[in-house]
Parts: sequence; C-alpha cells; structure tokens
Amino acid sequence: MRFGLFGGGKVGSANPLGDSYGYRDFIRYICDAEELGFESAFLVEHHFTGVGQLSASLNLLSYIAAKTSRIRLGTAVVVLPWHNPVLLAEQIATLDVLCEGRFDMGVGRGYRKEEFQAFCIPMSEAQERYNECFELLLKSLSSRERFSHHGKYWNFESIVVEPAPIQQPHPPVWMAAGRPEGIAYVAGQGHNVLLDQIGSVSDTIERVQVFLKAQAAAGIVPDAMRCGVTRALHIVNSEAERRQAYARRIETLKKIGELAKKPLNLEPATFADAGIASDDAALIGTPEEIGERLQKLADGGVEYVLLTNATASRESLVTFSEKIMPHVRSRAPAVALAAA
Amino acid sequence: MRFGLFGGGKVGSANPLGDSYGYRDFIRYICDAEELGFESAFLVEHHFTGVGQLSASLNLLSYIAAKTSRIRLGTAVVVLPWHNPVLLAEQIATLDVLCEGRFDMGVGRGYRKEEFQAFCIPMSEAQERYNECFELLLKSLSSRERFSHHGKYWNFESIVVEPAPIQQPHPPVWMAAGRPEGIAYVAGQGHNVLLDQIGSVSDTIERVQVFLKAQAAAGIVPDAMRCGVTRALHIVNSEAERRQAYARRIETLKKIGELAKKPLNLEPATFADAGIASDDAALIGTPEEIGERLQKLADGGVEYVLLTNATASRESLVTFSEKIMPHVRSRAPAVALAAA
Repeated sequence: MRFGLFGGGKVGSANPLGDSYGYRDFIRYICDAEELGFESAFLVEHHFTGVGQLSASLNLLSYIAAKTSRIRLGTAVVVLPWHNPVLLAEQIATLDVLCEGRFDMGVGRGYRKEEFQAFCIPMSEAQERYNECFELLLKSLSSRERFSHHGKYWNFESIVVEPAPIQQPHPPVWMAAGRPEGIAYVAGQGHNVLLDQIGSVSDTIERVQVFLKAQAAAGIVPDAMRCGVTRALHIVNSEAERRQAYARRIETLKKIGELAKKPLNLEPATFADAGIASDDAALIGTPEEIGERLQKLADGGVEYVLLTNATASRESLVTFSEKIMPHVRSRAPAVALAAA
Repeated sequence: MRFGLFGGGKVGSANPLGDSYGYRDFIRYICDAEELGFESAFLVEHHFTGVGQLSASLNLLSYIAAKTSRIRLGTAVVVLPWHNPVLLAEQIATLDVLCEGRFDMGVGRGYRKEEFQAFCIPMSEAQERYNECFELLLKSLSSRERFSHHGKYWNFESIVVEPAPIQQPHPPVWMAAGRPEGIAYVAGQGHNVLLDQIGSVSDTIERVQVFLKAQAAAGIVPDAMRCGVTRALHIVNSEAERRQAYARRIETLKKIGELAKKPLNLEPATFADAGIASDDAALIGTPEEIGERLQKLADGGVEYVLLTNATASRESLVTFSEKIMPHVRSRAPAVALAAA
C-alpha cells in the first residue's frame, strides 16, 4: 500500500505570525513527506474563504517542484469553471515541465455555493462549464498543431499551447467520484479516481472493485494505484487526544455537510450521514489501530491512500512512516485482483 | 548603476532536446545572474507563438523563487486583458509570499494583434479591459476586507483575496511608457516605468529626467532605480561576431516594427525608425565599448538598466559582471539630481 497527502488547508492563517509562515511550514511539511517515503501531495484549491486557504495551488506546486525531486505533485482539485482553460493548460504544462513529469491533474466542477456566488457564475452552469473547460484543457495540452475553439463560454482562434507537458499526451487526470456509474465512467475514460474521506471501509472497498472492473471492461490494465482513497488521519497518543480527535472529526463531518448542503445533482458523493460511533472511515487512533484499519482496506484491494493529516506535523509523518507504513500489506497485485 | 535581466525568449525551443531543457537552461541562467550580482530578472509573457515562448511566467517565477534568495523577480509584462484579475491577484500574492517580497509586478495592455485575435478579444477593448483589470487587481491585492466588483467585463461578489502579499499594499507596479505625458502619469501615480530598448541614449536620458521630475512634482522622493531602461546586450569578441550582432539587431528592429505595426493609439512607444548606423540604443561591442555607452547613460542620470542578453550564456554574464559592471559609475544620487 502506498500513501500520499491530501489537502493544503489553512496555509495562510496556520501560523499567527502571518501568511508567509504558514506557507513556509506547509512547504517544509511536503518536503518532509518526500523524505519519509510518501508517494504524493495533492493540494486543494479554494477561494475567498477568509480563513487563509490555499488559492493559487499551481503556483505553490511550482515552488514545491523546485524543493523536491521524487514526490508526485497533484491538485485536488482545480475547479475548472473558475479558470480560463487555455491559460490553465499553459500553467499546467509549465508546471509539468518544471517538476519533470510529476504532476497529477486533479480536476473538479466545484460544489461550494459560496464560491459560485463569489465568481458570479450560476451553479446551474457548473456542469456545462466544466465539460467545455475539460475538453479544451485536454486538447490544449495534447495538440501540437494549431486549432480553434468556439464554444458556449470560450473562444480561441488558431492557438497552440506551449510548452508541451512532459507527460504525453497530458498529465494523468484525477476526478472525484462516488456513485458506481460515476466511478465506472471515469475508469472507462482512462482517468483516475479520487474517493471521498467519508465512505465507510466496506463502501470504499466496493468502489475500488467497481473501478478495477470498469478498467478491465474498457481494456485498461486494472491498477488500484489509479484509485486514490482519501482518509482523515489523526494519530493520538492519549485518551484526551482521542477525544479531541473525535470532536474534530464531528466538526469536519458537519462542515462537509454544510458546505455541500446543496450539491449538484449530477454526481453527488454518497457522503455517509452516520454518527461518529459508526464512522470507520477516519483513521483516528494509535498507530496500531490505524494500521489495523488500513489493513482492512488493503485486504479489500485498496492500494493507494491519500491522507488529510489533522496535525500536519513532521512528528506525525515520522510516526506514520515508521510505525504504520511498513506494516500494511497489500492483498495481491491489482491486476490479479481484477482478473479474479 | 545596477543591472537586471529582461526577457525570457524562447525557453521552450531554445534547446533541440525539447522544452524541458530550454527551461532548465533558462533557470540556471537566472541563478547565475543572482550569483554574479544582478539585481533582477523580468520575464516576458507571450502566448501561442509556436516558437516556444514563455507563457506561464508566474509559474516559472514561483519555481525560480525557490532556487534563489536575493534577486528580484519581475514580469515584463503580465498582459492584463488576458487574465481574470482576481485569479491573477491570487497568483501574484502567492508568488510574493513564496519569494518573500521580491516580486516586481510589471503589467501591460498587450500590443500583438495575433494575440488579441487568438484570445478572440477585440483590440479596441484593450484599454478598457486593462483599466478594469488593473484597478481590480490592486484592490484584490490590497484589501483585507471583503468587497464586490461589478464592472463591464468582470463581476465578483463579496470576495477577499488570500494570501496577503508580503509587499504592502501590493508589489511595486512597473509599466512600459514612452511619451513624456505617459512617463509623467505613471511616475505621478507612484508606479515604476520600463523604458524601451530602442530609444537612443539622449532620448532615454530625457525620459528618465521626465520621470524624476514627475516624481518630485507628485511629492514622491525621486528615485531613478524606479525607472528601468531596457537595452539589448551583445558582447562581441571579434569583428565577425560584431557583424553577426548587428545583423541580429536589424532583425530585432524589423520584428519589433512588424509586431507593433498597428499599435494602439493611446500610448505609442516612440520607437526610433532609425537605421542601424545611428542606433546607439543597443549595447553591442566589446566590454570597453559597452562600458562607455553605459557610462553615457549613467552620466545622464540612468541608474537601472535591464538587459536583453542575446547569448543568454553564463559566460556573457561573467564577462559583464567582471569587465563592465564595476566600471560604470552613477553620476550622483537620484535625489540630488532631481533637486537640481
């Protein structure tokens, strides 16, 4: 089983000394993760929250590209309806060149009502804008010939995007999906899936199997590394810390419920509305307890877990890499699994 | 006198091995410049040229921010009509945080007919789009309170841009100007000026004096470091190299004439249409000859020269820093000058 980081939270206000300290701490944290054997870091993008959330993820990743050499760098996600697809393609291609092909291109449609309002974009246009932007983004990244685009939202005449990304025809695409038909669609398109942090262990295992079967059905070599399971992580050292971690988890679940209160109908994540007692999705506990929970996922065919680490400290990464990482064993190679 | 670099040329196709080699060479070149005592690097942004020009300058600068610690990092320029002003503000603020306040914010309206056509933006809207974008960009960077914007081209509701840039209220603004009224306007607004590479020595000296006087008239401490004089640089070691350099210069002058053939009427640069014989703008020659030409500029009050270096080699930077840089003496402190 391999592990990445997922999030990017309050980089700005994380440190009382100001925005730059929060960024510096976060950058060091990603460098620590590379050193300690983590596979990837996927950064969230949000806008206008007022709590110091990361807004320009592709710029931060460009900086981190220079400070790292092995860890994969991803977005989770770039919200396409906010962006000019061609300028975005130029940024992504440049980043892919700068990090020498380590970029993972997580894209999404957006779900926060507040953000649509702030950008003065009707939420009802989200899917259509996403579709047009996504198609144009891929074409911009992969075409080495000039082309024109005249769509509903964007027009370009005789363009060619430079530089060419290192990863051809474009960096791997990652998309959030939850329902079986959504997961199967993304897999069948040859893209990668991000699963939510709220799905139970058994739901998550089921989804990964849906993903692998859909890959096989589409003639793609099934590979569970292309289905990232996001999980909240909170390593605790005492009962007091455990209580704090649970309280935090409840707040997170409430907040996700709040922020996604009016989700779009097209691809609703099947967020469990379960109470904390029945929440086996989060990785809260001692290293041993977390290892056991991860082993259940591994036994079900999960290969790739992306962690939203509550403490975001070097200490927690060290504990994870020393006391958890080496003890979780994948069940079997993903290809064998899907063939079963 | 202090020196920066200006350009960014064909980063992509500069190396026959592919785009990434061109970027790698260019990044090393900027790091060399920092090591050798250059003050700044201003990067050009262009789109869809098909010759490998730098497109995502803010991403490349974010990477370079991590590889450098002292050199100032600038755009020359970000063409505002292409960009969403608020997403641009987020990128700029993030970069300013990442480089710890070393960002110089060069902005422009665009002048290439081909680019306007490619973006499907009528050139007749350039000034209006520039104005709206510039105003909103500065407000986004400097406001720590939420605000709304409802303009002709952009609408935002209750937004606050994060992070806050290190340089408050915003990174220094640099704008190209050529005519006296244009230079005086920019100076009076408290911004910085970029002068073109084609103005003769005497025209350039006159413009710097216009800049300093306008600063003084606006109650701003006159400072010639805020008026960057761009110059083509080509150090030659033989008569054959000199002939090549002149040929190249003629091509450049033709190309600039071509690209700016239908410039906007509002702020035309007074590009000299002179033949190469009377062209004393370019710094072509031996180190001694270049030093003499720079001394003329220094004697006229020029303090800051931004070089477009034809060879873009470490060797040429070393020669410049050893044989030219130490020998050019500023006439007098800029403040004393303007008071005269």
